[in-house]
Amino acid sequence: MNAKNLIKRVTIIGAGNVGHNFGKAFRQAGYVINEIYSRTQSSALLLSQTLNCDYTTDLKSIKSNTDLIILAINDDALETVINQIKIKDKIIVHSSGSTPLSLFNDKGFKQYGIFYPVQSFSKNETESLENIPICVEGNNDNTENLLYSFAKSVSTKVYAMDSKKRKALHVAAVFANNFTNHMFHIADDLLKQNKISFEIIRPLLEKTAGKLKTETPLGAQTGPAVRNDLKVIESHMEYLKNQKDYQELYGLITANIFKAQKKK
Amino acid sequence: MNAKNLIKRVTIIGAGNVGHNFGKAFRQAGYVINEIYSRTQSSALLLSQTLNCDYTTDLKSIKSNTDLIILAINDDALETVINQIKIKDKIIVHSSGSTPLSLFNDKGFKQYGIFYPVQSFSKNETESLENIPICVEGNNDNTENLLYSFAKSVSTKVYAMDSKKRKALHVAAVFANNFTNHMFHIADDLLKQNKISFEIIRPLLEKTAGKLKTETPLGAQTGPAVRNDLKVIESHMEYLKNQKDYQELYGLITANIFKAQKKK
Repeated sequence: MNAKNLIKRVTIIGAGNVGHNFGKAFRQAGYVINEIYSRTQSSALLLSQTLNCDYTTDLKSIKSNTDLIILAINDDALETVINQIKIKDKIIVHSSGSTPLSLFNDKGFKQYGIFYPVQSFSKNETESLENIPICVEGNNDNTENLLYSFAKSVSTKVYAMDSKKRKALHVAAVFANNFTNHMFHIADDLLKQNKISFEIIRPLLEKTAGKLKTETPLGAQTGPAVRNDLKVIESHMEYLKNQKDYQELYGLITANIFKAQKKK
Repeated sequence: MNAKNLIKRVTIIGAGNVGHNFGKAFRQAGYVINEIYSRTQSSALLLSQTLNCDYTTDLKSIKSNTDLIILAINDDALETVINQIKIKDKIIVHSSGSTPLSLFNDKGFKQYGIFYPVQSFSKNETESLENIPICVEGNNDNTENLLYSFAKSVSTKVYAMDSKKRKALHVAAVFANNFTNHMFHIADDLLKQNKISFEIIRPLLEKTAGKLKTETPLGAQTGPAVRNDLKVIESHMEYLKNQKDYQELYGLITANIFKAQKKK
């Protein structure tokens, strides 16, 4: 199936990071951005100018001459927004990792689904979706096939995945992205306290991610917890005694590494 | 000062990952590897063959015709090993991030110091020290200058750093390397439980490290904790209810991210 025969015009609900990235990628792939919706006029206007399309701040009045409505908004706003959408005969999808397909159940939509990109988008830069994995799900085979084909037209890595698996993936992504980034923040903070440049640990960061090209994270693990180097661990815990949050995290993650290595 | 006038022959104590990497880098830079020591004959032999040099398994008999003795062993073995070294008139250094210079005090050595590479070395591959930051410290200016010059001959990034700062750096490196790697392991485990390939989060890993080229980790933070998306956080905690270790880590790191963002 070629999505472009059935999906030509796309409406984007939300003008944040995800909306920006979607808009540019869809336009680039040859789709018409029919309309942008945002709660705030300035955001809606900004993105509509970038994409050279119409915009609205009124959900009830979104134009019906569209083929796909894609929600690019925070998870906790999804239900409220979905309840306000009057157009029921077009395909509607959300882009959330955690929210099940069933959120669309019994709202009167005929065709609905998920278009979830496994990426963390930045405010400042738009990127091609080409190498970003996209997970799709549909309320029936026809919808799922259509969404698969649509996703394939913007990304080379498309996965059909049910809501349960997608949630597991989203939890994993939080560990692999948000939590690792927080570890980097703690490192940065500890370095700043000592007037040491973050640059000094950059080769280490690059090595850590690089190793995972050829090894599993469990196999690639190094450090005092793996060596069972209790002297070092104690001295680090002592170092962090006045920074209880960091000390607590240090202790808990170290204990977790012990356990993971034992199970190996 | 040119280290090569004063340091020509190097003795390496330890034939593990660090010993291997040091040996190859020093040899490449034109130093003579005088001798390798390892507790176990097979390790000592293996590295001595790689480096085409002598080896011993008896610390008391290491050859005195050396200019620098470098300890490349686990932190918890340092003191025992140092106590057995009879050669007191040569420069001796350890390569530990956490162990203070004062470990060498009152052991009879005249010149001692630190040669700490900020990197996590792999068993399987040796790498050039050229782009790896090296932190040096000496018991007096003369020794420190000599070690600085020696380090400069193998790496472009050399820092004179006291033991207190070096410990802070080591704690930071554990967060930035070992703990991030454990987050990747948890992600990998959660994906495996659902038969999802680790490949699906690879673009995310690369983005996370890449963003830190232009932003601080605090500024680059994304995810449910930053968005204060309590619904998603609750659903993730619920998802992890049968994996208490992961759930506990999820809760603690999320709480830490909240706090860090508030302080911004």
